[in-house]
Amino acid sequence: MVFHNYSPRFPGGSVPRFDHPTETVFTWAAPSLKFGLGALAEIGEDLHELGVTNALIITDPGVAASDVPDRIAHAVKAAGLDVQIYDGVAVEPTDASIEEAVAFARSGPWDGYVAVGGGSAMDTAKAVNLLTSHDGSLMDFIAPPIGGGRAPDQPLKPLIAVPTTAGTGSEATTICVVDLLDLHLKAGISHPRLRPVLAVVDPLTTLSVPPEVTAASGMDVLTHAAESYTALSFDARPAFPNAKARAAFCGANPISDVWCEKAMELVGTHLRKAVMNGGDLSARYGMAYASAITGMGFGNAGTHIPHANAYPIAGAVENYQAAGYPEMPMVPHGQAVASTAMAAFRFTYPADPGRHLRAAELIGGRPVDPDEGAEALPRVLRELMHDIGMPNGISAFGYGEDHLDTLVSGALKQSRQLSVVPRPLTAEAAGRIFRESLRNW
Amino acid sequence: MVFHNYSPRFPGGSVPRFDHPTETVFTWAAPSLKFGLGALAEIGEDLHELGVTNALIITDPGVAASDVPDRIAHAVKAAGLDVQIYDGVAVEPTDASIEEAVAFARSGPWDGYVAVGGGSAMDTAKAVNLLTSHDGSLMDFIAPPIGGGRAPDQPLKPLIAVPTTAGTGSEATTICVVDLLDLHLKAGISHPRLRPVLAVVDPLTTLSVPPEVTAASGMDVLTHAAESYTALSFDARPAFPNAKARAAFCGANPISDVWCEKAMELVGTHLRKAVMNGGDLSARYGMAYASAITGMGFGNAGTHIPHANAYPIAGAVENYQAAGYPEMPMVPHGQAVASTAMAAFRFTYPADPGRHLRAAELIGGRPVDPDEGAEALPRVLRELMHDIGMPNGISAFGYGEDHLDTLVSGALKQSRQLSVVPRPLTAEAAGRIFRESLRNW
Ligand SMILES: [Zn+2]
Ligand SMILES: [Zn+2]
Repeated sequence: MVFHNYSPRFPGGSVPRFDHPTETVFTWAAPSLKFGLGALAEIGEDLHELGVTNALIITDPGVAASDVPDRIAHAVKAAGLDVQIYDGVAVEPTDASIEEAVAFARSGPWDGYVAVGGGSAMDTAKAVNLLTSHDGSLMDFIAPPIGGGRAPDQPLKPLIAVPTTAGTGSEATTICVVDLLDLHLKAGISHPRLRPVLAVVDPLTTLSVPPEVTAASGMDVLTHAAESYTALSFDARPAFPNAKARAAFCGANPISDVWCEKAMELVGTHLRKAVMNGGDLSARYGMAYASAITGMGFGNAGTHIPHANAYPIAGAVENYQAAGYPEMPMVPHGQAVASTAMAAFRFTYPADPGRHLRAAELIGGRPVDPDEGAEALPRVLRELMHDIGMPNGISAFGYGEDHLDTLVSGALKQSRQLSVVPRPLTAEAAGRIFRESLRNW
Repeated sequence: MVFHNYSPRFPGGSVPRFDHPTETVFTWAAPSLKFGLGALAEIGEDLHELGVTNALIITDPGVAASDVPDRIAHAVKAAGLDVQIYDGVAVEPTDASIEEAVAFARSGPWDGYVAVGGGSAMDTAKAVNLLTSHDGSLMDFIAPPIGGGRAPDQPLKPLIAVPTTAGTGSEATTICVVDLLDLHLKAGISHPRLRPVLAVVDPLTTLSVPPEVTAASGMDVLTHAAESYTALSFDARPAFPNAKARAAFCGANPISDVWCEKAMELVGTHLRKAVMNGGDLSARYGMAYASAITGMGFGNAGTHIPHANAYPIAGAVENYQAAGYPEMPMVPHGQAVASTAMAAFRFTYPADPGRHLRAAELIGGRPVDPDEGAEALPRVLRELMHDIGMPNGISAFGYGEDHLDTLVSGALKQSRQLSVVPRPLTAEAAGRIFRESLRNW
C-alpha cells in the first residue's frame, strides 16, 4: 500500500523551539496489559501476584447475565482465593448507584477488585476502590466547585479491569465519571491512583456482543484515534508553569501518533467484519486489540470536537432508544461521538491536511487523492458508518434545527476537549458542524 | 518510501490455532513516562505526587561529575522536599557495591528514590529499594540455586528512573543484575515490584555523552529492536501451564512489533548524526526517544542470539579497553551485542525472511531487493557500524580461534535468551556465528 506522504511532527523533524513558550514535555501512562485468547483464565493468579486474597468482582446485570463474571470467579477460586460477585452497577453510574456499591464493598473484607464490563463497571469500581481505601464520601473527592476536591492520599487496592465490549478504553484511564442525580449534571474524579493496575483483554469475551453495540463501540475507538491523531500537538500548546498544571489531555505526541495510526488501520480492516459476523474471531481479535491500544497507547493525547459534541447529544436526548441496548432513552456514547465526526473533521482539516488525508488512507485501506482534500476523511467515515448501520446523523436521535443552540452551548462547555482542538471552535463553527450533522448521507 | 511487503503475524492475519497447544496470551508492562526537553525540572513535583517527602538520588561518580544529579536535587528541593545524593554506584554493580549502597540507604529516612544514569544506577537503586522495604540480604532474594529465591512481599517505595545515556532501557525493566564477586558470576533478581514507577527522559541530558558511548548505546537499542522483532513469536511457543510459568520474555507480539519498527527507523535516521555531532539536538531527541521505546514498547518481547553472545564476550575479556569508557578492561554492552549481530541475523534469516528484509529497510531507510536475502540485514548493520566507528568484530576485543569454544559454551548457557531464538541454536551454529564475527568487514 502506498500512503500519502505526511510529515510526522516528531521526532526527526523539528525540535521544540526555545524562543517561544510552548510546551516541550509529554506524558504517557497505562496499566499493564495481558492480552489474548483465554487470558481470563489467569486472573486468579494475577490477583495472587498482586497480593490479593479475597476479591470482589464488580459488574452490571447485563454482563452478569453472560458467563464472563462467573468464569472469572471460577478462575479466582481455582487459584485459592476467596471471591464474590457484585452485579449492581448501573448502566450510567449515578451518585446513588455508586454509594450503594460502596456501602456494599465497605461491608466486606475484600482486598482487591476486578471490574468486568464497559465504562460503567470500570468507573464504579474505581469509586469503590477509592472509598474503601479512604473514609469520606464521593462528593468529598469530586472536583470543586461541585465537590470538595479532596485528593487521595492513601494507596488504593489492586484493581484489575476486564473490558468486555471492545469499547472506550476506560480500563486504562484515571477518570471516574458520575451522574449527580439531584444536580442534573455529570462530574468526575480523576487521579493517577484510580487507574487499574492491570487490564486483561480476552477477545473471546466479545464474541457475543450484539452487532449494534459492536458498531457503536468500534466507532468510539475510531473517533478516539482520529481525534487524538488530529488533536493539537503537545508542543503547540502554551508551556505549562508546572507539572500539576499540565492537563490530563496532553495533545498529540509521538507515542499517541503511532498507536492512533495502528488503531485506525485495524478498525478499517476489522469493524465491518465484526459487525456482519460476530463469530468472526479474527475480526473480533483485531477490534479487541484496537480497543486495547486506545486505552494503552493514546488515552491521554486527547479527544476534541466529536467527543465535546457527544456530551450534549447524549445529555439532551428525550425519546431515542438504540437497538441492541437497554430499553431506556439514551444515545450510546459511540453513536453520539460518530454522529458529528464527519462535519468535525471537515472543519479541522485546514489545521493539518496531511494528517487528515493519512487518517482517511489508514481507515479506508487505500491511497487517497490529495485533491479530495477536506472531504476525504468524511467520505471514508461515511462509507464505514453506512456499511455498519450507524444512525444517520443527529436527526436520528430526534434533534432538529430547534435544538442546535442547546447542543452548541453544551459542546462549548467541554473545556477538557476544547483544550486540544486543532482549530479554535467558535459558536458559529460549532453550529455549522451540528447543522451539517443532522443527516450524514 | 516503498517498503518490502511483509505480513504481520497479528492481528488481522491468522488467529491462534486451538488444535495445537501453543501460547495465545502475551503481556506488556512499562513504567509511566515523562518525555521532553526540560522534563527533569519537574521531578520534585513528580515525587511529591507519589507521596515522597525525602528523596535519595542514586547515581555513579561519572554521572555525578555532570551537573544532572545536582540539577535534579535542586528541582526536588524547589518542590519543598528533602533530598540527598548517593554517588557510590559501581560501573558494574557487585554484591559488595550494592551492600554498601543498601547500608547507606538503611541509615537514613528516605521514602523515595531517583536513579540517575545507566543500567548500573538503575539496578543498584532497584536493589536498594528492595532491601530498604524488606529485611534480609541481597542473597536471600537472588534466584536459586545461588540465592534464597525469596519473593518481595512488601510494597516498595516510589522509584523514579532518569536514564542519561539513551541506552538499554533498564529504566523500564523489573530486573536487577549483580556481579557476585566471590562466586565469579552474574546473577539477577526479577520481580514486577522492582520496576520503577516513572521514567523521566530528557534528551538534553544526553548532549554531553561521548561519541563512543553514543555509538555503543545506540547499537544496543538497535539490536534490542532487531532481536525482539525477529524473536520467536509469542504464539509459536508451547502454551504455558499457568501465568507464573510464562517467561519474562514473551516473544514477538503485536505491541512489540510496532515499537521495534519505530525504533529501527529512528536509529537508522539519527544514530550517525548523534555520533558525528553530539550537539545535534534533533538527533539526540530521536535517539532518546528510540531508547525510551526500547524500555516502554518491547522490553518484554525478548532478545536472542546477539544478547546471549554478549554475556561471554563481556565476561571473558582480558585486556580490551574501550575509548570513551572508564579505564578498566571491559567490553561495553553495546559493543558486545553489536559484534555478533551481523552473523546472528544471517543465521536467523530463514526463520522469517520477510521480517529480516523489513528490518534492513527500516534501518537503511530505503527499499531492499528481496534477492539480497540473508545478506540484506547484515549489510545494513555493517554500513552503520562502520560509519559510527564500532570495533570490527570480536577480534577487536582480543578474541581469536582459541576462544571460540569458551564463547560458545557461555552463550549456550543463556537460557532466557535462547527461549525466544527464532531458530534452534546448536553449538555448531553458535561456533559459526562467533567465527564469522571475528571480523565483520
Ligand atoms: Zn469515547
Ligand atoms: Zn542490551
